[in-house]
Amino acid sequence: MLSLDKVFNAQTVLKSIIRETNVVRAYGIATDCELYLKPENLQITGSFKVRGSAYKIAMLSDEEKAKGVIACSAGNHAQGVALAATKNGIKSLICLPDTAPISKVEATKAFGADVCLVEGCYDDAYQRALELKEIEGYTFVHPFDDENVIAGQGTIALEIFNELDDIDAIVVPIGGGGLISGIAYTVKQIRPSVKVYGVQVAGAPSMYNSVKNGGIECLNSVSTIADGIAVKKPGENTYALVKEYVDEITLVTDDEVSSAILALIEKQKMIAEGAGATAVAAVMTGKFDLKGKRVVAVVSGGNIDVTSLSRVIDRGLLNSGRSTSLLIELIDKPGQLKDISRIIADCGGNVTGVHYEKGNTESVNGCFLRIEMETRDFKHVNLIMQTLREEGFKIV
Amino acid sequence: MLSLDKVFNAQTVLKSIIRETNVVRAYGIATDCELYLKPENLQITGSFKVRGSAYKIAMLSDEEKAKGVIACSAGNHAQGVALAATKNGIKSLICLPDTAPISKVEATKAFGADVCLVEGCYDDAYQRALELKEIEGYTFVHPFDDENVIAGQGTIALEIFNELDDIDAIVVPIGGGGLISGIAYTVKQIRPSVKVYGVQVAGAPSMYNSVKNGGIECLNSVSTIADGIAVKKPGENTYALVKEYVDEITLVTDDEVSSAILALIEKQKMIAEGAGATAVAAVMTGKFDLKGKRVVAVVSGGNIDVTSLSRVIDRGLLNSGRSTSLLIELIDKPGQLKDISRIIADCGGNVTGVHYEKGNTESVNGCFLRIEMETRDFKHVNLIMQTLREEGFKIV
Repeated sequence: MLSLDKVFNAQTVLKSIIRETNVVRAYGIATDCELYLKPENLQITGSFKVRGSAYKIAMLSDEEKAKGVIACSAGNHAQGVALAATKNGIKSLICLPDTAPISKVEATKAFGADVCLVEGCYDDAYQRALELKEIEGYTFVHPFDDENVIAGQGTIALEIFNELDDIDAIVVPIGGGGLISGIAYTVKQIRPSVKVYGVQVAGAPSMYNSVKNGGIECLNSVSTIADGIAVKKPGENTYALVKEYVDEITLVTDDEVSSAILALIEKQKMIAEGAGATAVAAVMTGKFDLKGKRVVAVVSGGNIDVTSLSRVIDRGLLNSGRSTSLLIELIDKPGQLKDISRIIADCGGNVTGVHYEKGNTESVNGCFLRIEMETRDFKHVNLIMQTLREEGFKIV
Repeated sequence: MLSLDKVFNAQTVLKSIIRETNVVRAYGIATDCELYLKPENLQITGSFKVRGSAYKIAMLSDEEKAKGVIACSAGNHAQGVALAATKNGIKSLICLPDTAPISKVEATKAFGADVCLVEGCYDDAYQRALELKEIEGYTFVHPFDDENVIAGQGTIALEIFNELDDIDAIVVPIGGGGLISGIAYTVKQIRPSVKVYGVQVAGAPSMYNSVKNGGIECLNSVSTIADGIAVKKPGENTYALVKEYVDEITLVTDDEVSSAILALIEKQKMIAEGAGATAVAAVMTGKFDLKGKRVVAVVSGGNIDVTSLSRVIDRGLLNSGRSTSLLIELIDKPGQLKDISRIIADCGGNVTGVHYEKGNTESVNGCFLRIEMETRDFKHVNLIMQTLREEGFKIV
């Protein structure tokens, strides 16, 4: 049974393993509430996950420890289990689908785990992990639906209360529900007046749907940039805890998550992964009634690969008018690129790409010119487009 | 005169204005030393600069405070002065060249300063600030060459000593030299055995040259992505302090700085600006003898605009084989894009861009195909190139 004692015990046990991440005041992200961040992206494995798995592993019997642990994950849970096992001096084996990115495999190995690559997808790796558990007697460390794992995640609430007085609400990302279960349970035992709000992504609304419809539901598929919370089915324990202790759950879109990632970079100099930015996204877009409140958003993790990060930034720049792509129809006459370049330069735009493209232009001799440029904002984009039109260019 | 008392006094004065940034252990960035970061990118204005200007402003007489302060900067110093003045309840005026990015102007205003846009470049804005100081009686807040400003920056050393025992070295970025002067002076008064190392960029080596050649030198021009330390001439005070207290200075290249920014993103989930990442760049590339040592690198700031950040990431991805651009010469025959797409997909590459380009191909009917793709590393790139060649494609 989950109990407050367990959460306090977890806090003591975890002291030598995890970082106590310091709450930071976030300026310029939310305008109508006093926003703080609990930056678990700065946690030792780049995510809160190590808390739960480290407490789970520390609580194993000597016999269980001697046999080692097994888990299935291509992400934050894998690294959490690997580090937690290593710090406890025991063996860990992580099953990964063989399609997992090399960077994740390497990171898991770097924390001391043995890696078992399984042909197929996540479900195949999961099945293999269960088989190996049976054959070898390993203890399976579930990513969320385990009371010790949940107690470990609950230590986040204790740390928040330790640093901040008089908070009104804590906003928490939800995947399988382990993080929010631990936090909500702890909060409601200690300070029940503090609201606990949950956030899922629109592309993976398993807990949202389950709570709304009053029973655990399983999604057929999930699709989101927040891969860390792309979970098809809530756990039994986590579903029950969320139903009892969480005040409200909302959904955010991938675009809202991208904007939150960008805001955290620009305002807080922090990298969050998609899942990690969902709580901030919900606050930024006013999904809960937080006006005038003192609010903590949990930034659950920062393990986003830089290729995705680069795409999120590009998307964010486009969405805010800071980069622009124009398609201009040209007639076949010399000096047109020169004129266009001059107009853009005079307006203060910075050209970053030029491509000629054939296509169904009005004149047979015409073509399309694709111009990519850095701009200041949408007003600036409009100024450039208007000036180009005034000088006779046709923007498609 | 600079004194240790002043630095301690600054620490007390700054308590209500700045954040005491917590030192973090950095794993996976430097392999042969125990590296810690002093993350001043997480400081309230996104840079250490607020320390110096806030102490300078707090020490003004009531008469001086009543008249207000003036500064000239398009960057971190502007925001530091603006916030420090606002927190002290006095007026600030910041002169900026009218070519300054709108985002910097807005950020400065947001911290409560009045902004005076001056036609021309930085030097014009500086001249105008000096004129206004004379006419209006404002106090000019120098970005580095001022003993109170230097004492404010020295508080960083006190905070490091407060958190970490037995450190061997502190590595510090150098622009005008205010930051390293404050740190080196404080370190050498308290624990003279701790080494203080300075880092400049190869594109702006003003302090490096001055110390090497034994007298203050002024550069004709500076060029670097580390715009925060692109300073043409060291200060009188800072030059003297650096000469006396800094153990060694080195230079890093813009590419080394880019790699350091990328490492801080991937390993620490932190955004550093170019200047802010120079100390880490020097540690990563083994510029000082730090083997087996306990080292603190000061990450001085994080105010990089996302457009630059996006370019730094792209550069870093190219430099590490995680993105690739191939130019393939095609003969005019159907099905070639299909074959190339298949080969790349089979090898696990992810195509992100395709362009046909005309050019001086062997066959008159030929053309070039430019393929952009995401790859895992250089080994992966070589595998794809080799497979394409084996199937008869000519990579230019």
